[in-house]
Amino acid sequence: MHTLFLDSTDVDEYARMDDVIDAVEQAFGAFERGNTQMPAKSYIDLPQYNGDFRSMPAYLEVRGRDVSSSRSGSQRRSTAERWDAAGLKWVNVHPDNPVDHDLPTVLGTMIYSDPETAFPLAIMDGTTLTMKRTGAAAAVATDYLAVEDATSLGIVGAGVQAYTQLEAISEVRSIEEVVVADKDDERVARFIDACGDEFDVRAGSITEAGHCDVLSTVTPVEEPIVGREEVGENTHVNAIGADAEGKHELTDALLEAATIVIDDHEQCTHSGEINVPYGEGVLTDDDIHAEIGELVVGSKDARTAKTGVTVFDSTGLAIQDVAAAHVVYERASETDAGLEFDLVGVGDSSA
Amino acid sequence: MHTLFLDSTDVDEYARMDDVIDAVEQAFGAFERGNTQMPAKSYIDLPQYNGDFRSMPAYLEVRGRDVSSSRSGSQRRSTAERWDAAGLKWVNVHPDNPVDHDLPTVLGTMIYSDPETAFPLAIMDGTTLTMKRTGAAAAVATDYLAVEDATSLGIVGAGVQAYTQLEAISEVRSIEEVVVADKDDERVARFIDACGDEFDVRAGSITEAGHCDVLSTVTPVEEPIVGREEVGENTHVNAIGADAEGKHELTDALLEAATIVIDDHEQCTHSGEINVPYGEGVLTDDDIHAEIGELVVGSKDARTAKTGVTVFDSTGLAIQDVAAAHVVYERASETDAGLEFDLVGVGDSSA
Repeated sequence: MHTLFLDSTDVDEYARMDDVIDAVEQAFGAFERGNTQMPAKSYIDLPQYNGDFRSMPAYLEVRGRDVSSSRSGSQRRSTAERWDAAGLKWVNVHPDNPVDHDLPTVLGTMIYSDPETAFPLAIMDGTTLTMKRTGAAAAVATDYLAVEDATSLGIVGAGVQAYTQLEAISEVRSIEEVVVADKDDERVARFIDACGDEFDVRAGSITEAGHCDVLSTVTPVEEPIVGREEVGENTHVNAIGADAEGKHELTDALLEAATIVIDDHEQCTHSGEINVPYGEGVLTDDDIHAEIGELVVGSKDARTAKTGVTVFDSTGLAIQDVAAAHVVYERASETDAGLEFDLVGVGDSSA
Repeated sequence: MHTLFLDSTDVDEYARMDDVIDAVEQAFGAFERGNTQMPAKSYIDLPQYNGDFRSMPAYLEVRGRDVSSSRSGSQRRSTAERWDAAGLKWVNVHPDNPVDHDLPTVLGTMIYSDPETAFPLAIMDGTTLTMKRTGAAAAVATDYLAVEDATSLGIVGAGVQAYTQLEAISEVRSIEEVVVADKDDERVARFIDACGDEFDVRAGSITEAGHCDVLSTVTPVEEPIVGREEVGENTHVNAIGADAEGKHELTDALLEAATIVIDDHEQCTHSGEINVPYGEGVLTDDDIHAEIGELVVGSKDARTAKTGVTVFDSTGLAIQDVAAAHVVYERASETDAGLEFDLVGVGDSSA
């Protein structure tokens, strides 16, 4: 038996976005049904290096069709068999990396294990995986919450996550027009270069991006930059950027006006988009419409004719990583991708 | 930049025991001085597979000579420079693995990371690493707690851990005679075969093993098998086997008569050798002489002329794994060992 090593290129290739969206949706459903285990993230804080590590272990079991049929405009059809998966992502945030070390701020490593034996089936790059599963979560939320006939996507923040947002969301809606807003003209130009062939992409203001049918905010800002006036009457907003206490991208006024869906109550109220107004009492549990898993299993309503602006607060769950790793491993195993290695010394004698 | 993959053979080769003992001793010292971060282990319980996963993240910083000179009989001399290290072990216990899947019960994977950038420097087999660092912990305790002129080692339980116990303890005392006790004659014969050239090894009863100068118990028993009468007046006992609530190898009478040193209060009282009598109130905090780190930094006494039987309750700390991984990585990096892999996609263009 060998462990499969998959680098970022492999993960990019085998994390086929339609599969990852399905797997992440099923993971949200399993979470809502109580068929997951997800211990709280453990942190190691290293102020001397302006960084931290997080360990994110998880297990999930998908039992057949955990997914409701309430997705409004999707062309997708889920055909979930029973499957389960376990694994752990070891990830960090070291903001000085790009300038001081020519390395990304976030460097993830994923160990994907067989739950039945704990054998490490694969070890893969967790950085690309994180972007894929984050895009997939936004796509799941968009599928339940955006207007059916959505054709335009606004993106605020033209960094690496912008690409996977577009890749994922265009799987669930027929996106034609993309408006990207970023203070950095070079980043915008790179994005238009990369995606302009497939989509009608242009640079625009935050307000122009926000008046698309769907908006994804993927910035590292601490203080809000998107207000009530910046978005359309029925825009669905995927709020991705806020990832720590004290950070938010959307104004309180926008959140108060919106139907809010979160991924996980504990994570969102501590470090997600809603953490600041929730901590200040501006938002309470009564202002939270649902966890995304409740939309998936059908216990709470997705968008209706009366719903206006919607916001999905995405903090990123360990089960998303495990679900995405499951897709990568299954796909890669069908090929001769990656590198087989007898890590634990139980393979053949050639080890 | 590449990540180094090291299999169990590499770990076995580069975890040079004298270095691992030094590193683990320094880690215990750093722990006592508050220079470590070690979040509680996170568990995922999978009763449907009779197994569980544990994630063990840790960081430690060794600041020069954190090690006291109170080791009594050692020929070793520590020359610690300042170093730090971070990492995570993802490990499991699946008791049905050997019979049902021809796999070990425990399968560990270690991610060893640069604390400054979080770059994954190495990914290595954690199973061999665990045995090495566990042997090293016993050696550190033996160095502080066994009689100076110890020449005999008893081992109860002739499984895989028996080998690393002998390998490690013979680094800190001039072991000549080894008595091994196990119900399984085949295991005993294998052990004698493997170690008989270097040491005077013979099979014996638990009482014969226990009357050696040093005794290591490395069994999976639930109920005690070593009592007060089974050990000598000045025997030092390394109690390694107990690893879960309800398990113990030594009788209450032996523990009550002994000077008890533990590795970590929380782990030992929950799942270590002392957990049962501690839980029942037979032992209290007053019966615990020290944490091993206190012996290392010199704030508590090691063996004196008046000390009789000593017991080291070893549960295994995440900082031991990180310390041992540090040794493996540093040694392996000096060679062309292992496999370099551009896991995170920041290497050269050949990635």
